[in-house]
Amino acid sequence: MLLRASSFFEMYAASPVTSTFMLRSISGPSQFIQQETFVVSPQVPVSEYVDGYGNLCQRIIIPSGTFTLESSVVAICDANIDVDMNAPYTPIEDLPDHVLQFLLPSRYCESDKVTELARIIVDGVLPGYAQVEAIRQWCHVNLTRQYGSTNSSTSAMDVLLSKTGVCRDFTHVAIALCRNMDIPARMVVGYLHDLEPMDLHAWFEAYVGGRWYTFDSIMDRPVGGRVIMAYGRDAADVAFASHFGYVELKKMEVKVTRDV
Amino acid sequence: MLLRASSFFEMYAASPVTSTFMLRSISGPSQFIQQETFVVSPQVPVSEYVDGYGNLCQRIIIPSGTFTLESSVVAICDANIDVDMNAPYTPIEDLPDHVLQFLLPSRYCESDKVTELARIIVDGVLPGYAQVEAIRQWCHVNLTRQYGSTNSSTSAMDVLLSKTGVCRDFTHVAIALCRNMDIPARMVVGYLHDLEPMDLHAWFEAYVGGRWYTFDSIMDRPVGGRVIMAYGRDAADVAFASHFGYVELKKMEVKVTRDV
Amino acid sequence: MLLRASSFFEMYAASPVTSTFMLRSISGPSQFIQQETFVVSPQVPVSEYVDGYGNLCQRIIIPSGTFTLESSVVAICDANIDVDMNAPYTPIEDLPDHVLQFLLPSRYCESDKVTELARIIVDGVLPGYAQVEAIRQWCHVNLTRQYGSTNSSTSAMDVLLSKTGVCRDFTHVAIALCRNMDIPARMVVGYLHDLEPMDLHAWFEAYVGGRWYTFDSIMDRPVGGRVIMAYGRDAADVAFASHFGYVELKKMEVKVTRDV
Amino acid sequence: MLLRASSFFEMYAASPVTSTFMLRSISGPSQFIQQETFVVSPQVPVSEYVDGYGNLCQRIIIPSGTFTLESSVVAICDANIDVDMNAPYTPIEDLPDHVLQFLLPSRYCESDKVTELARIIVDGVLPGYAQVEAIRQWCHVNLTRQYGSTNSSTSAMDVLLSKTGVCRDFTHVAIALCRNMDIPARMVVGYLHDLEPMDLHAWFEAYVGGRWYTFDSIMDRPVGGRVIMAYGRDAADVAFASHFGYVELKKMEVKVTRDV
Repeated sequence: MLLRASSFFEMYAASPVTSTFMLRSISGPSQFIQQETFVVSPQVPVSEYVDGYGNLCQRIIIPSGTFTLESSVVAICDANIDVDMNAPYTPIEDLPDHVLQFLLPSRYCESDKVTELARIIVDGVLPGYAQVEAIRQWCHVNLTRQYGSTNSSTSAMDVLLSKTGVCRDFTHVAIALCRNMDIPARMVVGYLHDLEPMDLHAWFEAYVGGRWYTFDSIMDRPVGGRVIMAYGRDAADVAFASHFGYVELKKMEVKVTRDV
Repeated sequence: MLLRASSFFEMYAASPVTSTFMLRSISGPSQFIQQETFVVSPQVPVSEYVDGYGNLCQRIIIPSGTFTLESSVVAICDANIDVDMNAPYTPIEDLPDHVLQFLLPSRYCESDKVTELARIIVDGVLPGYAQVEAIRQWCHVNLTRQYGSTNSSTSAMDVLLSKTGVCRDFTHVAIALCRNMDIPARMVVGYLHDLEPMDLHAWFEAYVGGRWYTFDSIMDRPVGGRVIMAYGRDAADVAFASHFGYVELKKMEVKVTRDV
Repeated sequence: MLLRASSFFEMYAASPVTSTFMLRSISGPSQFIQQETFVVSPQVPVSEYVDGYGNLCQRIIIPSGTFTLESSVVAICDANIDVDMNAPYTPIEDLPDHVLQFLLPSRYCESDKVTELARIIVDGVLPGYAQVEAIRQWCHVNLTRQYGSTNSSTSAMDVLLSKTGVCRDFTHVAIALCRNMDIPARMVVGYLHDLEPMDLHAWFEAYVGGRWYTFDSIMDRPVGGRVIMAYGRDAADVAFASHFGYVELKKMEVKVTRDV
Repeated sequence: MLLRASSFFEMYAASPVTSTFMLRSISGPSQFIQQETFVVSPQVPVSEYVDGYGNLCQRIIIPSGTFTLESSVVAICDANIDVDMNAPYTPIEDLPDHVLQFLLPSRYCESDKVTELARIIVDGVLPGYAQVEAIRQWCHVNLTRQYGSTNSSTSAMDVLLSKTGVCRDFTHVAIALCRNMDIPARMVVGYLHDLEPMDLHAWFEAYVGGRWYTFDSIMDRPVGGRVIMAYGRDAADVAFASHFGYVELKKMEVKVTRDV
C-alpha cells in the first residue's frame, strides 16, 4: 500500500537551542521511500548523521523566535504484518550478534525487575511468538491509554505502578517483559495509518522464530500500514525531538492518508 | 542556492536483470536535501543499502519489457566552491585514516604509472592546492571533450593516449596525477547546474590544506551549484547504473534548475 | 609505560549457557596493544564481533562443568592523564555528532532526575573541566566504597540513596550528574595499575574543552596506567560478562604489573 | 588446528616515512585468535584503524635508521577447507548487498577484459563452484610461479601476457576471470601452513552456493591451515605494507608452525 504521511511542528525558542530530530524515514525491508521532504522555516542549516542503530538524525540549531518544521514521506509499505502464533522461541545461542543488545535492560525498560509479572503472563503459553502476543495483550488490556499521565522520565516500572500511559509507555512495558523472558525486543517509532487519534506512534518488534515480528500494544488487532522512522532500545534512543535547551511546542499536526 | 535536479531513464530489458543504481542524494557538509523522489514504473520492489563509502545504493530487478526510473531532488547547496591557491600540501602523516585509501591506485586511475607527466605538470608549482589546480588545468587544456570516444573500460592511461574523453575520463586522469603526487583524490558524481550540455556529471575532490576541495576539469572556472550523489575512488565505485545483464537505455533526460 | 595485565576466571555451569564477554582490548588513542591472549579451557568455539560503540565482544557457549577463561594484555599506555582545570564547557552545538548520545539518560544513569544535586555541586564552579572535577570529588568524598552493597540492578538514583557502592556505582552517579549539566559523559572499563585492592575497574570520561578527559571517582588523585577494554553509556553497555543463563563464578584473579 | 605464525621485517629509511601495514589478524568465522603480538623497534607510536573491508590497519611513521617489526599470532583455524563441486552458481539477485562490489573490476583485476578466456575455460563446466575450480586449475597449470617476474604495477592483464608471477598475480588472474562470469571473488592475504617456500601468501574466495569458498591457485590441492590477515578486492586493498616514501626492506622472515 502507498501511504502519504507528514508531521508539522511549530516551535518557539527564546534563544537558540541545539536540537536533534529523528523525523526522516529510510527505505528498509518493509518499506520503500518513494518521496520525502524535510523543510524548515526560517531556512537554517540542517545537518544529518546516522546513529549507531542506522537511524537518520537531523541536527539543527533552532533560532530564537518561531520555527516550523515539516517532514513528509510517500512510502510503499506492507498493508499487513506477519502473524505466526507458532513461531518458536529463538535460543540465545542462535541469535545474530547485533540482536543480543536487545536482551539487555535499558533506561526505560528495566527488564531485570519484572520477573514475577513476566512469569505470570506467559504461564502455560508456548515459548516464542505466543508469549510475546500474551505480553502484548496483557498490556493492551491492563494499561489505560491516557495522554498527559506520563512524561519523558516515566519508565516501564513507573507505568506498571500507575497502569496508565501513552503508546511509548505501553511499548516500554512490553519490551521489558519480553527481554525478561530472554526474547530480544526493540522499540520502533513512526506513523501508523489506522491510529486514532492520529499522532506519531511507537510500537515494538520482538525476535522470535529467527526474525523480527511487529507488535503493537495500543491496537486491538495486528495491522500494517506503518512507516518506520527509527529503531532503538527504548525512547532514550528514538526520541522524535531532543532539545538541549528550552523549546516550546506551539502546534503539532500529524497526517497519514492512503493512496487508493 | 536551491536547486531542483532530476534524471529520467527509460530502459528496455528482454528478460529480468539485476541492477544497482546510485541515483539518490543524501545530506552532507555541502548540501541539505529538502526533498527527493525515486519512482520506478512498473512498481517493482526497490531495496537500498549503504556501500563502504557511505553512498546510498538502490537495487532493483528490472523486469522484462519497458522500465522507467525517475529520480529527483531539491537541495540547498553552495553557490560557490572554495578556492585557496595557498592551501598547502597536507603531509601524509597528518592525513586522517580514512583518507589514506584515496592515495592508492584504483581500477581506472593508474596513479603508479604517471610519474613523469605529474612531475612535468607541477614543476615549479607550490605544493598543495596550486598543484591540484595545475593538474586540473592541464586536463582542461590538453584533453578534448568528445562523447562516444571512450567506454566503460577506458582508464586514465587510455585517455592519456587518446587525449579525448568525457567528464569521467577527465576526472580519472586528474585523480591519477594527484595521487601520484601523494595528494589524496576522490571521484564525485552528481548534478552540476552550469553544465552544458546537461547530463549527469563527474568531478573530483583533492585533500590539501587539511580538507577536501572541489575541482572540475571540464569547467573553465570554479563553480558551485553541485548536488552530490556519490563518492568513490573512481568510476568503478560510483557508476550511476550497474546492470548485471543486458539492459538497453532508450531515453535519458537530466534537468537542473535553480529556484530564484 | 608498559603494563602487563591479566584476568582469570573459573566458572561452573550446570548446563550450557550462552555468554558474551568484553575482555579484549584494542589499540586506541591512549594505548597500543603489543600483545594479548584470550584462552579458554576446555577449548570451545569463541566468536567475536564489534558492538555499536566499537568494542570487541567475545561470544561463547559455556559448556556444562568447570570452565576457565584467561585474558591477558601487554600494552603501552599513558603514565599520566591530562588535567586541565581551565578546559571550558563545550557548547552542545559544537559537539561531534557521535558524542551527542552521551548526553542522554541511560539505564543506570538517570541524568534527568539529578538536577537539584547537580546544581548544588557545581554552584560557582567554572563551566567545563572544573565542574566535572567538582562532581568527581563530590562522589569521591560523599560515596563510600563497599563491596557487596550494590548489585547489577543498582542505578545512580539507588546509589544516591544508599551512598555506598563500588567503582561502577561511583561512575554511574558521576555520569548522571555530568549529563544533567549537558556535559557528555561515558563509562570506561578496564585495568588500572594503581587500583587497590586489584580488580577489574570502571571509570568515566567527560567531553569538555573539545575532547574527552579521563576521570576516576575512586582515586584521590588523577592517575594514568590504564588499559581500556570497553566504552559505553553505562554498565548495561560494558559488562565484562553477560551470562544468559546461570553461571557460577568460582574464582577470579586480576593482575596488573608494570615493566620497568 | 593450532598454528603459530610470525613475520619479521627489518627495514631501513634514510628519513621518516609514513607507512601502513596489514599484519594483524582478527578472529572470524574460520579462525579464532588466541594470542597475537605486534612489536616494533625502536618503539615509535603505532595507531590502528579499521578500513572499509573490516581489516585492521597499523599506521606508523617509520623513523630514520634501522627499524624492525615483528608480528606473531597463535590461531585456532580450520585444518581443511570446504570443497563442493556441486555448489551452484548464486544468481546475482540472491547475492547479499555487500557482496555485489566483488563483481566489479578493480585496479589489478580487469574483469571486463577477459571475456574470451573466461568463456573458453568454463566451457561445458557446471555453473558455480566447478567453474571457479576450472579457473583455479587453469591458473595453476598455465601460469608459472617466478619470483621477481612481476612488480606492484602488474595487473591480471599483464600476467596473462607474461604467464608468470607470484601468488598475488595468480590470484588477480583468477579473480578477474571469476568476476567476468558474474561470480563474486575477493582477495585474501595471510599465512598458509603448507606453503613452500614459506612467505606471506595471497589466495582468493569466490561466492557460490550462497557462501564464500576458499581457492588457491598456487597449491595443487585444497588445503586449510590458513591464518587470514585481510580481505579486499585486490592487492590495492590488501598490501601487507604501503610506504608513502622510500623504505628499504633489508630482511624478511616468515614462519608458520603447527602445534601438535
